[in-house]
Amino acid sequence: MELSKVIVDTIWVLITAKMVFFMNLGFAMVESGFARAKNCVNILSKNFVVFAVTSLGFLFLGWGIMFGDGNPFIGLQGLFLLAGPDNSPATGTEYQGVYTALSWAGVPLFAKFFFQLVFAGTAATIVSGAVAERIKYVSFIIFSFLMTMVIYPVVGHWIWGGGWLQTQGMFDFAGSTVVHSVGGWAALAGILVLGPRFGKFSKGAINALPGHNLPMATLGAFILWFGWFGFNPGSTMTADPISISHVAVTTNTAAAAAIMSSTIASWMLLGKPDLGMTLNGCLAGLVAITAPCAFVSVGSSIIIGLIAGILVVVGVLFFDKMKLDDPVGALSVHLVNGVFGTLCVGLFAQDKLTGTATGNGLLFGGGWHLFMVQLAGVVSVALYTFGISLVVWLVLKATMGIRVTLQEEIEGLDIGEHGNIAYPEFLMRKNAYSYLSVKE
Amino acid sequence: MELSKVIVDTIWVLITAKMVFFMNLGFAMVESGFARAKNCVNILSKNFVVFAVTSLGFLFLGWGIMFGDGNPFIGLQGLFLLAGPDNSPATGTEYQGVYTALSWAGVPLFAKFFFQLVFAGTAATIVSGAVAERIKYVSFIIFSFLMTMVIYPVVGHWIWGGGWLQTQGMFDFAGSTVVHSVGGWAALAGILVLGPRFGKFSKGAINALPGHNLPMATLGAFILWFGWFGFNPGSTMTADPISISHVAVTTNTAAAAAIMSSTIASWMLLGKPDLGMTLNGCLAGLVAITAPCAFVSVGSSIIIGLIAGILVVVGVLFFDKMKLDDPVGALSVHLVNGVFGTLCVGLFAQDKLTGTATGNGLLFGGGWHLFMVQLAGVVSVALYTFGISLVVWLVLKATMGIRVTLQEEIEGLDIGEHGNIAYPEFLMRKNAYSYLSVKE
Amino acid sequence: MELSKVIVDTIWVLITAKMVFFMNLGFAMVESGFARAKNCVNILSKNFVVFAVTSLGFLFLGWGIMFGDGNPFIGLQGLFLLAGPDNSPATGTEYQGVYTALSWAGVPLFAKFFFQLVFAGTAATIVSGAVAERIKYVSFIIFSFLMTMVIYPVVGHWIWGGGWLQTQGMFDFAGSTVVHSVGGWAALAGILVLGPRFGKFSKGAINALPGHNLPMATLGAFILWFGWFGFNPGSTMTADPISISHVAVTTNTAAAAAIMSSTIASWMLLGKPDLGMTLNGCLAGLVAITAPCAFVSVGSSIIIGLIAGILVVVGVLFFDKMKLDDPVGALSVHLVNGVFGTLCVGLFAQDKLTGTATGNGLLFGGGWHLFMVQLAGVVSVALYTFGISLVVWLVLKATMGIRVTLQEEIEGLDIGEHGNIAYPEFLMRKNAYSYLSVKE
Repeated sequence: MELSKVIVDTIWVLITAKMVFFMNLGFAMVESGFARAKNCVNILSKNFVVFAVTSLGFLFLGWGIMFGDGNPFIGLQGLFLLAGPDNSPATGTEYQGVYTALSWAGVPLFAKFFFQLVFAGTAATIVSGAVAERIKYVSFIIFSFLMTMVIYPVVGHWIWGGGWLQTQGMFDFAGSTVVHSVGGWAALAGILVLGPRFGKFSKGAINALPGHNLPMATLGAFILWFGWFGFNPGSTMTADPISISHVAVTTNTAAAAAIMSSTIASWMLLGKPDLGMTLNGCLAGLVAITAPCAFVSVGSSIIIGLIAGILVVVGVLFFDKMKLDDPVGALSVHLVNGVFGTLCVGLFAQDKLTGTATGNGLLFGGGWHLFMVQLAGVVSVALYTFGISLVVWLVLKATMGIRVTLQEEIEGLDIGEHGNIAYPEFLMRKNAYSYLSVKE
Repeated sequence: MELSKVIVDTIWVLITAKMVFFMNLGFAMVESGFARAKNCVNILSKNFVVFAVTSLGFLFLGWGIMFGDGNPFIGLQGLFLLAGPDNSPATGTEYQGVYTALSWAGVPLFAKFFFQLVFAGTAATIVSGAVAERIKYVSFIIFSFLMTMVIYPVVGHWIWGGGWLQTQGMFDFAGSTVVHSVGGWAALAGILVLGPRFGKFSKGAINALPGHNLPMATLGAFILWFGWFGFNPGSTMTADPISISHVAVTTNTAAAAAIMSSTIASWMLLGKPDLGMTLNGCLAGLVAITAPCAFVSVGSSIIIGLIAGILVVVGVLFFDKMKLDDPVGALSVHLVNGVFGTLCVGLFAQDKLTGTATGNGLLFGGGWHLFMVQLAGVVSVALYTFGISLVVWLVLKATMGIRVTLQEEIEGLDIGEHGNIAYPEFLMRKNAYSYLSVKE
Repeated sequence: MELSKVIVDTIWVLITAKMVFFMNLGFAMVESGFARAKNCVNILSKNFVVFAVTSLGFLFLGWGIMFGDGNPFIGLQGLFLLAGPDNSPATGTEYQGVYTALSWAGVPLFAKFFFQLVFAGTAATIVSGAVAERIKYVSFIIFSFLMTMVIYPVVGHWIWGGGWLQTQGMFDFAGSTVVHSVGGWAALAGILVLGPRFGKFSKGAINALPGHNLPMATLGAFILWFGWFGFNPGSTMTADPISISHVAVTTNTAAAAAIMSSTIASWMLLGKPDLGMTLNGCLAGLVAITAPCAFVSVGSSIIIGLIAGILVVVGVLFFDKMKLDDPVGALSVHLVNGVFGTLCVGLFAQDKLTGTATGNGLLFGGGWHLFMVQLAGVVSVALYTFGISLVVWLVLKATMGIRVTLQEEIEGLDIGEHGNIAYPEFLMRKNAYSYLSVKE
């Protein structure tokens, strides 16, 4: 292992990790912008504190469960506080430590940890949007701790930590499944246990509760797009020129195609090109390309993006119809397209395109094998993550409660949970809907 | 070509390219903030979708026209989808491919493409601000496609793609002409064909239509300043320590000087230090130093910045007087200072200052030669870009129309084009001006 | 000195410097968001122009005073415009120049300058928040020039420029003292000379004057957290893999711990988890870990962060009680935690943890020596910075005046100083407090 390679790899890993950290701001702005002003402080607080929670929870336990040597299902060595032996940046056979699954990456232990930490934070923050505008602050904090200490790391161990799905040959380059669908399944469980926001489905109708600040949401979406150039190219964890350049381009092209298709789809289905759909289309394309970005061609990335953009529009309409109240569209973006992107590896992969021996996907003559492995991964992760999340939400509900009072929900969580107002000097409309609802 | 050089160059090119990508957010925020709330969603939509359009248009055709081998006027080989042969990162005589003009850069083809793509996006997004608040969404999208597929790449071929101006010895380090004045000329043509916003010049007066959110505009200007540290230093396309450090400093110093001079100029001419002028002053300094940043000393960069800051203030007043309605000052920032910066190479260049043999500029004893070449470039690009843009705008106007109805313009494009409202919960002032105008 | 090392070090220094530059936006957003809408344009203007002022002032004189060879108290050679001889990136004994204190860093002179410039800018911008909502624009600009040309560089010379405190063995890795407490002491002097905002302490009460835009403040805090990943890891000025990875982790963990402790402290002391305290808690943790980040373990960084988060909450309440009016909490964040963080080196340092021979701190068996040196540094810097800042503020007050008229303060500095309104189309509450105050 030559020294200079360690240096450039560490620079690459740290800088891309910082960009992924920056995505926390993107999520905070998208979620706040798509929600109502009366809950804005609460949403900002959740999004701000959730990375603090992740930083401590993943340090205390999550990292060990995810990357510690153990059995195919869970890490068992060096569990707490990265305390196991480790001589990174030594790699391969020279590596002497208990975090063998990352022994291929020639960077110091703390660089590996920092990079994985920001990914864990992303999974946790996805939940935040779906449960917004009615969840108790303290309950969300506790769920997030459990998410980053035990829920997320177990799936991570299966796919990235040397676990059974990795052994089976499942590929998830930057985490369509590990990060996005895990966040999505946990969010779905939360939505089911919490129930919809007051007024969302009153009198059998589906009522739009428009976001209060679209510039803020747009700001957030741009930041997420930017951050994804850390998320995907950084997941090489080594500065391989061909591979990182390839991933940068496929990531961008998928987003671009999804923006066009979601914009056009909303134009056709809703009559006008809705900005919210354009923004969520971008995120959908990015989620979908996350698993296959290094394994598919630029042409394939266009097709993946086009489909992702349509899926997100259809998804938003579908979940509304199913009376699953998801204020920001997190299920359509992260769950639907996390699943779709993972399966795309099985469809569009081209063997050794940027070096990795994935075998070919179904559409490139590789037969059903890779697709079925990806599908098995999707289903297993769904069962585990949805199941354990449901249990955690139900236990939290039964013990401390997870939902604010109706009174507080109508008045807004900002006052109730934090004693703050987001915009104290601005005159706001009476939230007509709240008052209407009170009379129901 | 040693491997490690390829690695660090690729890291440098990709990271700076990501910073330039991030400038899309800066432009979106500056433009939205300087416009009125009723058109905010439309402006955000334009700025968001324009990079998607560029990503596809430049991939399909623009790249090939710009960097494909061909004649002095246009690229003719490997036109579509980067499909030509290419063995990058091989350089110089070892390079075997059809994108010879970039064969000096030792990075993979997709790194070159991604870097050039974000520059193409910048040119396209400049137009957006100038035509804001009255253009039809669909017409803007179509113009942007044409801009990135054929208008911008032709000029790019002349100056960066091995074309006739490059052969003549014109220097435009990071694109004062290629990016900024091209965007500016296309914008000027659009302004002429579109006409001013309703109410801007009613009854012979020049009416201020103040931007609705100055914090947002300031946010955008800071992001652009930040992004320019990718734009200019990244244009080395190789991590040469002396040169990238030099460019970082001259870029910043020009911006700083322009901030001071534009602030003082507005203080003297308008009575108070106007924030909008301060922000546009910063951008003016950055545009002006873009062409000469690697060829001039830090002292020269101060002088260039000081002049740029005054030019932008005078420019805004001038275009208003000429009844050219430019809501964000794009002409003063990008066109005037794009031209000025390009000429500054001819005035301030010092031969081989950071390695490039530019010869000396007029003020450093090099005589008129370099200045005249730069001037010839400016004039040729003006004629071509303004001419073809005018044709495109006129054809669009004659066929599908480029301007929304007066009714829609008065009510705001957000409802008319998108069915969205930027701030649905905030109480807004009646837009007094709109109502006044209705009575005219 | 091998060439490739220079290249990667330069990339690292420039990219982290750009991230620190980006913190200017973070400060602008935090400060604007925590202030009232009527002063928003003024605050944005100050934050924007202050980096222009720094860029010129530090170039003209500050750099020379800070890093020029001289005596233990001040640089005396190569004072103006970086004009001294220098053959960077040569290092150690091969270095031939007058900026010897940085001869250990193997990057070009302009990379060193750009990195140090963005740090100088941070010190200057800290003052801005503390004196907000009543200072005259022109007076702030002049103070900032003096700050970056003579106040900050002298302290910088003592600790980073080869001066007497560096010789004594004081350690301040990334500037808890050099940047943050220097900014804090200058701010304290300004607060004393300016007096509180009108209405803040009327009739013996402490009146809350809530910030007008908490989303903007949150946006700023996230950007600062992001920028700190440049601030601290970049201060290595060399891409040492172990050290930069270590610093990234300790920086983040301290922030995370401080977020939790400040949130809980405000929950206990104020009844609810106040978002402003959560945000300032994050910044407090970051300021506190800035000096010791490379010298302490991750475990110690958690303890440092936990204490910092409590200090900032107590600090805000304390300064209010002392009738020191600090609109954004700059004293609690930068002064209190700058001092605390500097002392933490004396408490928690572990010798050669990432390479530097600091000796052990008090809690790691090193005895009182290191702590006393750090304390001596804190006290000396306090005396000098507070003293000279007080003189400058008093002279400015006696000559040109530093405070706007009462009339202008009540109506807002945006109109009075700039003739701009931040949000001209939004309907705002009558600022009840202003009117009440008028009647007093």
